[in-house]
Amino acid sequence: MEYAAIFHDATKKYCYAVDKGRFVIRLKTKRDDIRRVVLHYRDKYIPVQFHDTRQNIAMEKCTSDRWSDYYEAHIHMDVVCLRYFFEIEDMQGDVTYYGNHDFFDEEIDNNDYMYDCPQNLREEECFHTPAWANNKIVYQIFPSRYATSQKVDKKKWYKAPIGARDNLKGDLRGIINHLDHLEELGIDVIYMTPIFESPSSHKYDTVDYYQIDSSFGTKEDLKELVDKAHAKGMKVILDGVFNHTSQDFFAFADIKKNQEKSKYVNWYYIKNFPLKCRWGTKPNFKCFSYFGGMPKLNMSNEETVQYFLNVGQYWIKECDIDGWRLDVSDEIGHAFWKRFRKAIKAVKADALLIGEIWHHAEDFLEGDEWDTVMNYPFYFAAQNLIAFQNINVTHFLANLGFVEGNLNEKVTPILWNMLDSHDTPRFMHKCNEDSNRYRLAVALQLLWPGMPFIYYGDEYGMTGGGDPDCRRGMVWDENYQNKEIYEWYRKLISIRKEQTILTEGKITATITDDAKGLLCIEREKDEQKIVLLAHVKDATEDVAVELKEYIGRKNLITGTTFDGVLRAYEVAVLV
Amino acid sequence: MEYAAIFHDATKKYCYAVDKGRFVIRLKTKRDDIRRVVLHYRDKYIPVQFHDTRQNIAMEKCTSDRWSDYYEAHIHMDVVCLRYFFEIEDMQGDVTYYGNHDFFDEEIDNNDYMYDCPQNLREEECFHTPAWANNKIVYQIFPSRYATSQKVDKKKWYKAPIGARDNLKGDLRGIINHLDHLEELGIDVIYMTPIFESPSSHKYDTVDYYQIDSSFGTKEDLKELVDKAHAKGMKVILDGVFNHTSQDFFAFADIKKNQEKSKYVNWYYIKNFPLKCRWGTKPNFKCFSYFGGMPKLNMSNEETVQYFLNVGQYWIKECDIDGWRLDVSDEIGHAFWKRFRKAIKAVKADALLIGEIWHHAEDFLEGDEWDTVMNYPFYFAAQNLIAFQNINVTHFLANLGFVEGNLNEKVTPILWNMLDSHDTPRFMHKCNEDSNRYRLAVALQLLWPGMPFIYYGDEYGMTGGGDPDCRRGMVWDENYQNKEIYEWYRKLISIRKEQTILTEGKITATITDDAKGLLCIEREKDEQKIVLLAHVKDATEDVAVELKEYIGRKNLITGTTFDGVLRAYEVAVLV
Repeated sequence: MEYAAIFHDATKKYCYAVDKGRFVIRLKTKRDDIRRVVLHYRDKYIPVQFHDTRQNIAMEKCTSDRWSDYYEAHIHMDVVCLRYFFEIEDMQGDVTYYGNHDFFDEEIDNNDYMYDCPQNLREEECFHTPAWANNKIVYQIFPSRYATSQKVDKKKWYKAPIGARDNLKGDLRGIINHLDHLEELGIDVIYMTPIFESPSSHKYDTVDYYQIDSSFGTKEDLKELVDKAHAKGMKVILDGVFNHTSQDFFAFADIKKNQEKSKYVNWYYIKNFPLKCRWGTKPNFKCFSYFGGMPKLNMSNEETVQYFLNVGQYWIKECDIDGWRLDVSDEIGHAFWKRFRKAIKAVKADALLIGEIWHHAEDFLEGDEWDTVMNYPFYFAAQNLIAFQNINVTHFLANLGFVEGNLNEKVTPILWNMLDSHDTPRFMHKCNEDSNRYRLAVALQLLWPGMPFIYYGDEYGMTGGGDPDCRRGMVWDENYQNKEIYEWYRKLISIRKEQTILTEGKITATITDDAKGLLCIEREKDEQKIVLLAHVKDATEDVAVELKEYIGRKNLITGTTFDGVLRAYEVAVLV
Repeated sequence: MEYAAIFHDATKKYCYAVDKGRFVIRLKTKRDDIRRVVLHYRDKYIPVQFHDTRQNIAMEKCTSDRWSDYYEAHIHMDVVCLRYFFEIEDMQGDVTYYGNHDFFDEEIDNNDYMYDCPQNLREEECFHTPAWANNKIVYQIFPSRYATSQKVDKKKWYKAPIGARDNLKGDLRGIINHLDHLEELGIDVIYMTPIFESPSSHKYDTVDYYQIDSSFGTKEDLKELVDKAHAKGMKVILDGVFNHTSQDFFAFADIKKNQEKSKYVNWYYIKNFPLKCRWGTKPNFKCFSYFGGMPKLNMSNEETVQYFLNVGQYWIKECDIDGWRLDVSDEIGHAFWKRFRKAIKAVKADALLIGEIWHHAEDFLEGDEWDTVMNYPFYFAAQNLIAFQNINVTHFLANLGFVEGNLNEKVTPILWNMLDSHDTPRFMHKCNEDSNRYRLAVALQLLWPGMPFIYYGDEYGMTGGGDPDCRRGMVWDENYQNKEIYEWYRKLISIRKEQTILTEGKITATITDDAKGLLCIEREKDEQKIVLLAHVKDATEDVAVELKEYIGRKNLITGTTFDGVLRAYEVAVLV
């Protein structure tokens, strides 16, 4: 048994209450090292001799990463404090008892506090995520380049933009006019990058958080957009840029004017005076990525915090938006996010908060800060498996397994599973415009649990390299639309919506064959079974895979009976 | 290489800023599996082609537990965000590159975000602990049984108390009258269990948090005690019981009277009405350990939170106390402790906050809640090594290594290293009154980094089983005092204070011989060296250990030259 790889601690990562008396407990072990894990648990405060509350339950392997397995148990015991330890048997039949970060040869006598683990029921710390969001589909809009209600130069619209000042005149009215498109596609959630007053096309340098940028429209337009989206059953998420502002934001502008006499000096991190603001000089204040045009806000200043809590609440109260995607949110401290969550949930209990972080985010996802994140681990895994083809199927699953194994179970169904965004090259571009590979990636994304995150235009196979090339005008002109790709999205989304077992079913088997590039996941729910098959293999190789055991099942993707052969880049959903 | 045992993540446990631009980074590996770890790091936002900020540093093994080694690097780079990865070579010469929870065969190109780890400098999250506390000595007083200014029945005083109502009439004046004793012993910090109005002798069921219990004295007495302690260079810590109150606390008393109409119903967790308060009935409200006499406070109720933040501040403002030991603090939520810390540090920046938790406490010790804890892992390790003799020296060190490896480095010098307390049998009792073993344990405690925590009377070798037997009247009568033990304490404390290298020196060698029961730690500082030797062996065995390499060094404990032989239970400090 590999003791060094066995890990559990009673922090929120591996043990947490999901409700009164309901606990989730996890244990990490070396992959394929363990045959059996039993969780022993009891009430901490009731002496066994008075009332024996001891119970035990077999733990199940819930996921794996490249080197570890994660075992899990859901238990119910109405306690102030739970105490527990693990009985672990390895493949050779050796048994150890593990608790409180140590191993014992004999069953732990948990009348003594020293050997087992404690978990207190702190009810106020249970993680509540918005139930409406589970497994829903998000669509990202970059408003200046999505749709316009104005007359624009078509040639410029469809050309790659030159940079951040190259505003194509998209507006909110344009978006309102295209809500039918989103409805037809099957979108549940619209996320718009920033829409507040700002000189740039991306608007991540905000001048006024209380004004819709005039090129986009008015507060009434936003209200109308939200109302009409709601009428179609769609939610609307805005982009909250609270790490930094524009230099023209009133507080920084005041410092520029009054220098050290400004009453806003504590709103930023100013090293010395006079401010060095000119383009090309090295800023003497903190800013986003050393870029002087985006001075960084000081969120340990109470006034600043209050200001942005108000901003967060204002747009919910005024326009009934459904949540905030939080920009550069891992560069703002945990204390701010805890207060932000409280402030937002106080005005809309089921608002959704999504952090931007390019890495694993567990300490922001413990129930008192964000609800979920833009799932960059998914983005990297999909890109490496399908576009770059430098990892195999097992490695792909393992990387997603790490995320699942190390996050609260409430988060998994609302992870924003991305293939690309306004900050990355388009996935089609990464596939060298190979639409077979692109379709495979889209299928995995749309048939996976979590919230598939569609970057505008991806549904028509738009391409483009890094910013600004990935921010071209949306292809409303049919000549630019890849209709086949669009129908692919429609079909997969409709399968996803009809077959909730794909996202809610329990995995009963996972089969991978890295030599063949085969991925197979079987799920079950309510005595129904579904099989997701994917064949990740370069089309230039001999690629047909025989899967005789599934012959005769209906393939929802082709609408035909599965003949037992999976071709290159083919995806099948068998029922 | 055991990949499954290699772990790092960028949460506060293994990577944190200690100051602007100064980061501590740790990596956990399988014990004795790795030959060399190099940390590669750079500025996240400055492209290498513009300015190459890449650096690397060899990581040092800073501690070990039973199955893992912990590698550490301190680095300095003035950044908004750091990026880094690890180069790891095992004993066979195999090399891997590790970052972002994955392994790579080739050096990670950290121009791409996907492979390395990020750490943002969130300055407001740096952990600041009170500098005065480092390695200082704490003395715990149980006021009702410590010292009295009144005439009391001597026979009753020295007999084991019967229970919680058996108040021996100790008082604050008694403590004031014995400050010279504490000064002579070398105490730096006095910690008193609760002193506020309460019917019990332990006073953990508080009736009024704003009144000193009249049997103990008055607010003026406390002021005088603190002033006189301060004049002697001692700090004073009170016990904050914020998890629960007495039933007679005004808020609960009001609910008892007015039932569901009380305006305090939200101060507690009441399941239904009428309240079932009578002794012997099962309470229909949450309470500490299901004990109806201590109803549990609801700290998600803002009014309740405010009340206790005020209590916490009040005694600092009124009597200048130096901190709070926090009772049952792991049953109160993190959100309360974050606010409590802010409130306390706002009125006394260097106040010390100590949590009571019987297990490893990392999620409370990340810089925004408590400063430190009562170190029960030390208590269990010392008890098992010396009193119960069911673990060996290596296991003892490993258990302390786990604590050190998994806590912020600021915490280690202020851990309250306990042998016993009012909640446990006395250590002497656990040693079956064997004062040789007792002296060995005391020596390890007093010569160890951290804050040795002396339970009143231990300095005279007091004994006693579990509560209430461990709470006998303090042995002021010389007939009951073990003077040899007292001199032992005095000598060790004086060595500790003179030889700061014992607590501040860097460990340069650790030698254990479990067969012989030998522990040897060499430390260095400012080109000086000190050696701590301990021989943990039952006196009935043949026990002399030859340590020729140290012959001729001065042994500070005996005052003589070390002759190379360490006898049973002997401790030596060689310079």
